[in-house]
Amino acid sequence: MKALVYKGPGRRAWENHADPVVEDPDDAIVRVDAVTICGTDLHILKGDVPTCEPGTILGHEAVGTVEQVGDAVRNVKPGDRVLVSCITACGRCQYCREGRYGQCLGGGGWILGHRIDGVQAERVRVPFADTSTYVLPDKVTNEAALMLADILPTSYEVGVKAAHVQPGQSVVIVGAGPIGLAAVITAKLLSPYPLIVIDPAPARRDAAKLLGADVTLSSDDDVKEQVLALTDGLGADVAIEAVGVPATFETCTELVRPGGHVANVGVHGKSATLHLETLWIRDITLTTGLVDTNTTPTLLRMLANHQLQTESFITHRFDLHEMESAYDVFSAPEDTGALKVGLFRS
Amino acid sequence: MKALVYKGPGRRAWENHADPVVEDPDDAIVRVDAVTICGTDLHILKGDVPTCEPGTILGHEAVGTVEQVGDAVRNVKPGDRVLVSCITACGRCQYCREGRYGQCLGGGGWILGHRIDGVQAERVRVPFADTSTYVLPDKVTNEAALMLADILPTSYEVGVKAAHVQPGQSVVIVGAGPIGLAAVITAKLLSPYPLIVIDPAPARRDAAKLLGADVTLSSDDDVKEQVLALTDGLGADVAIEAVGVPATFETCTELVRPGGHVANVGVHGKSATLHLETLWIRDITLTTGLVDTNTTPTLLRMLANHQLQTESFITHRFDLHEMESAYDVFSAPEDTGALKVGLFRS
Amino acid sequence: MKALVYKGPGRRAWENHADPVVEDPDDAIVRVDAVTICGTDLHILKGDVPTCEPGTILGHEAVGTVEQVGDAVRNVKPGDRVLVSCITACGRCQYCREGRYGQCLGGGGWILGHRIDGVQAERVRVPFADTSTYVLPDKVTNEAALMLADILPTSYEVGVKAAHVQPGQSVVIVGAGPIGLAAVITAKLLSPYPLIVIDPAPARRDAAKLLGADVTLSSDDDVKEQVLALTDGLGADVAIEAVGVPATFETCTELVRPGGHVANVGVHGKSATLHLETLWIRDITLTTGLVDTNTTPTLLRMLANHQLQTESFITHRFDLHEMESAYDVFSAPEDTGALKVGLFRS
Amino acid sequence: MKALVYKGPGRRAWENHADPVVEDPDDAIVRVDAVTICGTDLHILKGDVPTCEPGTILGHEAVGTVEQVGDAVRNVKPGDRVLVSCITACGRCQYCREGRYGQCLGGGGWILGHRIDGVQAERVRVPFADTSTYVLPDKVTNEAALMLADILPTSYEVGVKAAHVQPGQSVVIVGAGPIGLAAVITAKLLSPYPLIVIDPAPARRDAAKLLGADVTLSSDDDVKEQVLALTDGLGADVAIEAVGVPATFETCTELVRPGGHVANVGVHGKSATLHLETLWIRDITLTTGLVDTNTTPTLLRMLANHQLQTESFITHRFDLHEMESAYDVFSAPEDTGALKVGLFRS
Repeated sequence: MKALVYKGPGRRAWENHADPVVEDPDDAIVRVDAVTICGTDLHILKGDVPTCEPGTILGHEAVGTVEQVGDAVRNVKPGDRVLVSCITACGRCQYCREGRYGQCLGGGGWILGHRIDGVQAERVRVPFADTSTYVLPDKVTNEAALMLADILPTSYEVGVKAAHVQPGQSVVIVGAGPIGLAAVITAKLLSPYPLIVIDPAPARRDAAKLLGADVTLSSDDDVKEQVLALTDGLGADVAIEAVGVPATFETCTELVRPGGHVANVGVHGKSATLHLETLWIRDITLTTGLVDTNTTPTLLRMLANHQLQTESFITHRFDLHEMESAYDVFSAPEDTGALKVGLFRS
Repeated sequence: MKALVYKGPGRRAWENHADPVVEDPDDAIVRVDAVTICGTDLHILKGDVPTCEPGTILGHEAVGTVEQVGDAVRNVKPGDRVLVSCITACGRCQYCREGRYGQCLGGGGWILGHRIDGVQAERVRVPFADTSTYVLPDKVTNEAALMLADILPTSYEVGVKAAHVQPGQSVVIVGAGPIGLAAVITAKLLSPYPLIVIDPAPARRDAAKLLGADVTLSSDDDVKEQVLALTDGLGADVAIEAVGVPATFETCTELVRPGGHVANVGVHGKSATLHLETLWIRDITLTTGLVDTNTTPTLLRMLANHQLQTESFITHRFDLHEMESAYDVFSAPEDTGALKVGLFRS
Repeated sequence: MKALVYKGPGRRAWENHADPVVEDPDDAIVRVDAVTICGTDLHILKGDVPTCEPGTILGHEAVGTVEQVGDAVRNVKPGDRVLVSCITACGRCQYCREGRYGQCLGGGGWILGHRIDGVQAERVRVPFADTSTYVLPDKVTNEAALMLADILPTSYEVGVKAAHVQPGQSVVIVGAGPIGLAAVITAKLLSPYPLIVIDPAPARRDAAKLLGADVTLSSDDDVKEQVLALTDGLGADVAIEAVGVPATFETCTELVRPGGHVANVGVHGKSATLHLETLWIRDITLTTGLVDTNTTPTLLRMLANHQLQTESFITHRFDLHEMESAYDVFSAPEDTGALKVGLFRS
Repeated sequence: MKALVYKGPGRRAWENHADPVVEDPDDAIVRVDAVTICGTDLHILKGDVPTCEPGTILGHEAVGTVEQVGDAVRNVKPGDRVLVSCITACGRCQYCREGRYGQCLGGGGWILGHRIDGVQAERVRVPFADTSTYVLPDKVTNEAALMLADILPTSYEVGVKAAHVQPGQSVVIVGAGPIGLAAVITAKLLSPYPLIVIDPAPARRDAAKLLGADVTLSSDDDVKEQVLALTDGLGADVAIEAVGVPATFETCTELVRPGGHVANVGVHGKSATLHLETLWIRDITLTTGLVDTNTTPTLLRMLANHQLQTESFITHRFDLHEMESAYDVFSAPEDTGALKVGLFRS
């Protein structure tokens, strides 16, 4: 088969690769029907993720069709159309037993396209298939489901749910890339007000507005002053960090009111400064996290019920074999305006 | 009357001062029967708390007898023996309505000995007396109750309860001063295991052991390695910061396991570094806070029922008029071994 | 002034009555600008509420203008337009300190139009005015605010929030009177699916549909079979009882899935049968409650932000002096189609 | 091998039976080293549990040694000493994914000694071994661990944790049989006060005292009056039902204060009356449930750390082959004083 192989920092290739086979009784072999690229894949290509070894097939967000399963697989069977989640879960360890699949100690967690071969290929082996794939309802298209492989559960779990967003609360989302926009969609499920989104790119602010943001601010604005003005002078109940750099994180800690919550969703490569000299007294809660995908079944059901608007994420569509072009487009969002790209088996 | 007056950075005096009078219908005038000194009082004296103006009577932890009340006071009356809490609550603002008295927007919060005259005096005016004083059960002594004016509710609410300590969880408390030891006592109410306390002073480690710590470590030990060894290699479920400097805070973030909780109780004067490059993926919850004293009634009941060991906190006892000596002793714990000092009306 | 006075079972009169005066320093005298009638008022008139003595002015849902306040009132002042809540809170007792105002032990709770004179009058004395009245935002009309005096916080707190409704959960509301419809509106804030409403009256089912119900069922339908069919055969995540008779309560316990929640909002006069022989093993949570009105500030803010549709509740409008006619219309909903009636000062 | 086979209502036999074999890749075959009898086994023998068919080997509480495992079993291996839990969990269904194993939809739940052959035998096949057995720490004896197969997690999860017992809260436990006493032990982990136990049998009240009850009452006492006297006239924060008959359940609903929690742990065969005419207004939470055993790993760790006193449960010890005698003794507790019986492989 063909697969996108990481060849070491700066290098990738869409090349021939041996087909995957069932290795363990809980494995499934899935034919990839739709797949996307994540910002994390670009990080790996830059060499920022040393736990990913050259030779690994990249990708952790896909939808496909089950072709074969091991003897111990009970919930999916050949022919099933499934979501392949970014998180693989052994289902047995202490973390999995609490639904905290992202922290799986039994061989799961974020492994696809990282520690084992991923989904940017014609076929993929998914370990622990019963707890790592999700049969799609008939009403859900491959393209819509693809947004549930990573970005929607990530923003919902690590952002919205971690911050306990409640009706009528003020929420600021810093960053309107795919993760930030997914936070807008999933925060809206809880009827916050106002929902403020901050991003330097006008196109992304427009997208946020379209998805339901009440107010958008440019990063050049005096965001602190504006957020205070919109929140009775106290600051927001919740700030969601959806960028992953120290400055936006520190902004979040400045924008929340006493008793507020900062939910960090961004992937960080550097330390931030935590202003404990002002924060110690302000009853702040700060959370970090990797997605667990324990909300995936609920999100799929909501998708089938038309409660989630996922149509606007994919800005560019490709044939699966145009993987290299898709990478080129996705790597240059300033030029291409790419948000998410979608690759589909023809 | 006599009172301990802050005279500007570095200066204090136990001097004559006008007696307080009822100014508002919800005020109470309380005769001070027992009072203590807080590390925060020393911070004020160093000039670190600019919101406290010279001329202010210090002190926010006392037990006394109500002498007079305003027309709107319903729950306490002259003759009542009461705890005067470090937190004053208007009982009416949006924060008070949620029991978050420390963040009171209606004129309360930490005001005694800070923004208005405090309790290190023969008498004190307590605003919002109904929600800021607590009638003592007969079985509770003044000395025992004194530890509930600040340190026990602070450690319990901002440390133990904020961190949601559960039976069987591993808990590390960094710092074994009054706040850290109060965290030991109140954490034990939830049956954690192991309860690990880290402090450089052998005497304080011994005190921690006596109050129920399972393991104590010196700050010189390789604490990370030792905590990992005591917690299946994963780290502690909960780390409670009870010092207030960047190094101990950062230690706490290193000692918790994925999914763990860092509860900051220490008062900080400087920023800390938050290692988001490792923490972003670890499902960490970090909390800060000022005490609300919403657990004070429960703690008083537990004190009456002999569920809280508060005897060992007061290491030095004085007559109220020996205020200056008490400050001297409390200011030099390395020499005097002082933990908390108690001053009593003779 | 004129007032609606309860004259003993079966009898009422809109008659002259002495004007109220400030009796305690935390009282406010409020001129009534808009008022409504509650099903509970009809219960009192039937003689079902013996704690309400003849001679009492009825009514506990109003909007008005502050005319006078006692010395200890801080948050409202003459001229303020305020919501008078059905719940009065001392703000000082152990229940008020937890925000559980409905259970106030300090002289509050449901007292207006019950244990003291109520709001169906030209003026009313409101005790504990700071914690029992709410200044209205400019954008909120008297009529819209009136629905927040009782029915919206009741349905939201005792129904939706008690049941912890979450996005994507299936919710059944049994009863589509004012309380049931208020449950529909406030449940929708959390994006449940499907939201099923059961009521025998076609007009009320239509109202439920208009407010956002996904499915409505008549009580004559085999509701259990239909609810199971709509919820994967397991039953609903949440059932909200909004009628107050044994049959509807028992229906709720049959409609929830294992792990589900039955939130009782209805006012009951009789015991129900609890089928523990089937329920003991099903992980059911059952809650009852009186409204606390701790969500009233949030609901007012959401009302100002157009997040709550309260327009359709008032079906009949009257001048305040047409109180007797309003009672007649409200007492015969089958004939008049009355949902809520509104009386307004001209 | 020998096994205790249910032969239809009123009849049982310790007789020869074919040895179990691995049927599915996630099965384990466990040699039974220690086993006990549950009240539920007696219910089956009375014919009260029609889902248990004649011919089934009874028993769902055991400790043993793994002899053989299927290909998909990862966490236990031959030679491991394991707890066999009363709950079997597929680990894959929607309920298991939430840690709600008792409600497993994938073939688990309470199946051992009920829907498939149980543990009162020399050997047992345990399906889904990875999520249904627990490797014992070295420090834990078979006898001590045996109490964690059912009664301790049941009382802790369905009683203590469901009721959210907090330090300083008043707790009433109605019934001091094995489940009630296990509730005493696990409630004590949270430092309630007072902990009141009600039981008609003096010996069981003595046992409750020994395990930490502060007050014990006979069912003949005016328990309501006494509980009110012990709880400021308001009633208990928590009442735990540990009997399973309507009268004790109704007692529990009378003993809790406004805002209180009734946690039903007893297995019921009949309906109870729920006095909604008084309870509707009292903010009561009522919970039911089957154990999930999601606390079993924590309880095992606490057992190894000497935090749980399980020594006093087993009043009578037998050789495994004395199964019939053990049943006779356990069936007549009034005569024999039996609490739990233990049977051990010699």
